[in-house]
Amino acid sequence: MPVTREQQAEIEAQRAQTASTRRVTVAELEDILYQPVPVLDHGFVRVIDYMGDDAAVVQAARVSYGKGTKKVSEDAGLIKYLMRHWHSTPFEMCEIKYHVKLPIFVARQWIRHRTANVNEYSARYSILDKEFYLPSPEHLAVQSAQNRQGRGEILKPEQAHRVLNLLREDAERCYGSYQDMLNEDEKGNVVDDEKQGLARELARMNLNLNFYTQWYWKTDLHNLMNFLRLRADAHAQYEIRVYADAMMDSLKRWTPLTYAAFVEYRQGAAHVSATGLAIIKRMLDGDKVTQENSGLSKREWAELMGVLGRTA
Amino acid sequence: MPVTREQQAEIEAQRAQTASTRRVTVAELEDILYQPVPVLDHGFVRVIDYMGDDAAVVQAARVSYGKGTKKVSEDAGLIKYLMRHWHSTPFEMCEIKYHVKLPIFVARQWIRHRTANVNEYSARYSILDKEFYLPSPEHLAVQSAQNRQGRGEILKPEQAHRVLNLLREDAERCYGSYQDMLNEDEKGNVVDDEKQGLARELARMNLNLNFYTQWYWKTDLHNLMNFLRLRADAHAQYEIRVYADAMMDSLKRWTPLTYAAFVEYRQGAAHVSATGLAIIKRMLDGDKVTQENSGLSKREWAELMGVLGRTA
Amino acid sequence: MPVTREQQAEIEAQRAQTASTRRVTVAELEDILYQPVPVLDHGFVRVIDYMGDDAAVVQAARVSYGKGTKKVSEDAGLIKYLMRHWHSTPFEMCEIKYHVKLPIFVARQWIRHRTANVNEYSARYSILDKEFYLPSPEHLAVQSAQNRQGRGEILKPEQAHRVLNLLREDAERCYGSYQDMLNEDEKGNVVDDEKQGLARELARMNLNLNFYTQWYWKTDLHNLMNFLRLRADAHAQYEIRVYADAMMDSLKRWTPLTYAAFVEYRQGAAHVSATGLAIIKRMLDGDKVTQENSGLSKREWAELMGVLGRTA
Amino acid sequence: MPVTREQQAEIEAQRAQTASTRRVTVAELEDILYQPVPVLDHGFVRVIDYMGDDAAVVQAARVSYGKGTKKVSEDAGLIKYLMRHWHSTPFEMCEIKYHVKLPIFVARQWIRHRTANVNEYSARYSILDKEFYLPSPEHLAVQSAQNRQGRGEILKPEQAHRVLNLLREDAERCYGSYQDMLNEDEKGNVVDDEKQGLARELARMNLNLNFYTQWYWKTDLHNLMNFLRLRADAHAQYEIRVYADAMMDSLKRWTPLTYAAFVEYRQGAAHVSATGLAIIKRMLDGDKVTQENSGLSKREWAELMGVLGRTA
Repeated sequence: MPVTREQQAEIEAQRAQTASTRRVTVAELEDILYQPVPVLDHGFVRVIDYMGDDAAVVQAARVSYGKGTKKVSEDAGLIKYLMRHWHSTPFEMCEIKYHVKLPIFVARQWIRHRTANVNEYSARYSILDKEFYLPSPEHLAVQSAQNRQGRGEILKPEQAHRVLNLLREDAERCYGSYQDMLNEDEKGNVVDDEKQGLARELARMNLNLNFYTQWYWKTDLHNLMNFLRLRADAHAQYEIRVYADAMMDSLKRWTPLTYAAFVEYRQGAAHVSATGLAIIKRMLDGDKVTQENSGLSKREWAELMGVLGRTA
Repeated sequence: MPVTREQQAEIEAQRAQTASTRRVTVAELEDILYQPVPVLDHGFVRVIDYMGDDAAVVQAARVSYGKGTKKVSEDAGLIKYLMRHWHSTPFEMCEIKYHVKLPIFVARQWIRHRTANVNEYSARYSILDKEFYLPSPEHLAVQSAQNRQGRGEILKPEQAHRVLNLLREDAERCYGSYQDMLNEDEKGNVVDDEKQGLARELARMNLNLNFYTQWYWKTDLHNLMNFLRLRADAHAQYEIRVYADAMMDSLKRWTPLTYAAFVEYRQGAAHVSATGLAIIKRMLDGDKVTQENSGLSKREWAELMGVLGRTA
Repeated sequence: MPVTREQQAEIEAQRAQTASTRRVTVAELEDILYQPVPVLDHGFVRVIDYMGDDAAVVQAARVSYGKGTKKVSEDAGLIKYLMRHWHSTPFEMCEIKYHVKLPIFVARQWIRHRTANVNEYSARYSILDKEFYLPSPEHLAVQSAQNRQGRGEILKPEQAHRVLNLLREDAERCYGSYQDMLNEDEKGNVVDDEKQGLARELARMNLNLNFYTQWYWKTDLHNLMNFLRLRADAHAQYEIRVYADAMMDSLKRWTPLTYAAFVEYRQGAAHVSATGLAIIKRMLDGDKVTQENSGLSKREWAELMGVLGRTA
Repeated sequence: MPVTREQQAEIEAQRAQTASTRRVTVAELEDILYQPVPVLDHGFVRVIDYMGDDAAVVQAARVSYGKGTKKVSEDAGLIKYLMRHWHSTPFEMCEIKYHVKLPIFVARQWIRHRTANVNEYSARYSILDKEFYLPSPEHLAVQSAQNRQGRGEILKPEQAHRVLNLLREDAERCYGSYQDMLNEDEKGNVVDDEKQGLARELARMNLNLNFYTQWYWKTDLHNLMNFLRLRADAHAQYEIRVYADAMMDSLKRWTPLTYAAFVEYRQGAAHVSATGLAIIKRMLDGDKVTQENSGLSKREWAELMGVLGRTA
């Protein structure tokens, strides 16, 4: 359960309030507004606010006075055109804000996307909760032999058991020391009058990278898609990909035409190099092209054949 | 009249539409949503959309689950604290989108604020209207003798008359040539079958810098205040300051607590140098400080005395 | 001649000075340092400074202590890998600074690339020279019938003659009025004691968009390539493409391995949509695919056939 | 010793190489180029590369052809003017690149400065060394009673001893588990053939936030000063302030005129609110102003009196 009962009550209270607005609204996204979507064992993603919709992309592209949309089919065509030709500025005219709870090592990957606004929970100011990420056994895998940045096969059960015990015991112990050093309970009361409480900004350094933090994260539609292109991808680490997958759903609800164009021209598309294009042309001309006569390295050849759905 | 009758009708139609939303709304800003505020002789600023309010700043600073606001007085105190200590990220959590019509030479100053999203009307793609800025006589001034970037006294009536004639005649003539080169009327029909129409992306180069362009401009609350701090300031050129002044009103409607803190800690505040502080301390101690014994140049001394409301 | 004799003398003086440095240096780029490369009729691009080289990209990717390069072949391989997989941050570790003289309408396109540092010559502060862009007749073309943002066939000689006369006369006249309003000659002396000189920040609005301005423009290697990908491209307007072409040469001198990877994976590459990939697979399987049974619009089909070098 | 003998040898080798360049060079900065400045117990900062100098700031402000500097006194005056009036773009024309080794919890603060380029050592790809930060006893302090984000008095010796033991034992143990899960020694060899080695991207989550990471960090002179203004400040956490202090020295070597202006107009300066200015005016007029009749809260009053060097 990623949120407490009190937190869920606050969320419900906010969901219950409605107001009238002249702004564009998106009913499909309003349906899930504020509601946390669980991710990993204690994390979540929830949409806090949004600005604009598919029509706002069209409106900005046309710099129009009115709503900028006559027919959905025209909007879809223009959005596809903008996406195909990498016209990014109209997509920057929509904005979305998330509240995310995530392990610190995931936060450290995420923050590298700089074109976003972030407010993180401060462990200088407040005490972090005792919540840490433990992978489920099916996500514990060996180091990949092919890809130095990836995972290989799943650990055998007893190996997984051993790893999970280490992770759990170390996190438990480190949190215990954290509390001991702080000499405060969760309500901020002194535990032991004989001991001095270490400053929070120092004590936090004893926590492990799998402890959860949380932040508000706001970005525009263009940069959201940049994030999703890299993170909702098979090469992304599983622990960040599950967040991106949850956000793909919010993208689909929010801007369905943009979502469709994103799938067609980004997620399902491929970038083919100059040499790759020349190879495809030769193949279409009936040439028998092999890795050896292709001009590509083995790795690039395998990547190209993968894109073309052919066995290397 | 900065918009045509058709444009005003489109605006009215959009203002008439309302929807129910779970998002935070700001009634004072909804009141003027979409409505153009006239600026200069043919320009305007209008708010197209917004995200967040004062409470959203507080909510982000606290990374809270609920609305993040118990009492207005607490919110005001926290917002003042954030502004005073230059904590900018919570203010980045609110976003606003404007539609602006403005002379090209103003647009060229404005665009230097890079942390914003922009979609400008394309003169490669479309034909610009015949609308150019002519200052009113009371804004025609001589080059300042003191400040190489500023204006001095107002032109005498016959001089102003001469200048306005030059500006008007040159703009009229250049627009005439623009149409002649395009060989198109406003509806895109060929005017003279004997002539070839020059590409729009070329013909536009004949227009003067006082012709109007327009754009959608979106930024966050923090960067909006950066813009206003520089442009709603006595040192800014009059022709951009009037836009900033109109936007100050939307800031006040949108986030009144932030607006008050902005006036207190930015617009009405002063940055005093190390030497300036030492001088103030000496003055408070009863020393007689003069420019000569101050360690400041004449210019800096005059600036400091200006800040302290004393005659230099 | 894009620079005056005095300016060329200043440039020569700076080129004549050398110093010893421990920093990485690139002899090929030093050869042209400070030297203006003429562009259009009065413009230029010149490299003013640079930081890093191909090895610095590798060094950053490896976060290494030493120079980070053992063999050129390894560096080339890593740079190709980074480019192929869109790992942009190592390329951000190199920086280049240009001085550019360019028509204002080109500057207005260029400035839309926001991830760069810019200092532009101020016409609020100084008087602009009488230099404006006149296209050569072979670059005067009609509006394209196919592409609303492009050019079609070249104007006939007498039509070109007519257009050039309009451009020249209007620019001459507007500059004359500019001087008249300023009431200053080029040295800043008052021309006519009977007249008041209009403030520079106002007078400049009478200039046409083909007048030349200049700026210092600094960016990192990654963002330089983003600029070149869009502007050294057949779809870019000719008047900005010639600047990008000149900068391609500096890229080649500065970071030859990165340049080669850029040509292979960006300039000469193609982005193929999900549907496009499915079509290529069908074609490779021997299916007869036509636009009608492809699932693509006529326009997209033509684009895909263009990429594959097949007649649509 | 923050670097190994091999690393120091690589550094020495690079320092020994010199080349001739036409670029501006700064001898004072060249003196320390590549040389690590030790920070905390295992960290360092070292300058890897730089572009520009004080004269380059002036040159950009003037958009000049030559070196842009006639007399040092004029340059100093212009730089002071630019700093005083918040003209930031000329300072953006200089660039500096650092290699930094720092604890992860410090890196997490640092990365919030988004206008910079970063390449961090990847613990997905490589194994982190066994190096973690242990504060020296004089930097172990209790939570501040006044400031929820700060430290109070120093811990008593036996309390400091207790805290250091907890930090050391937990870090030792967590690193041991990390190695155990990886089943690799430092050279990447398998330790125990019976065990499966967990993927690096997973094992890293067991490390504590006081383990060291390292990165290349590049920024421009303007944004470097933004960083230093916040981090070389008494309110910054000690563990990041020591890095900023070391970087202040490189700023002084690199651009001494800018450094002096930074100290005068940023570090030693104060921002006084509208109400604060009114109070100073009253005090200068001889009024007896107290917190009660000042219109300021107790906290703000104390801040203002601190700035004015008066006891509240």
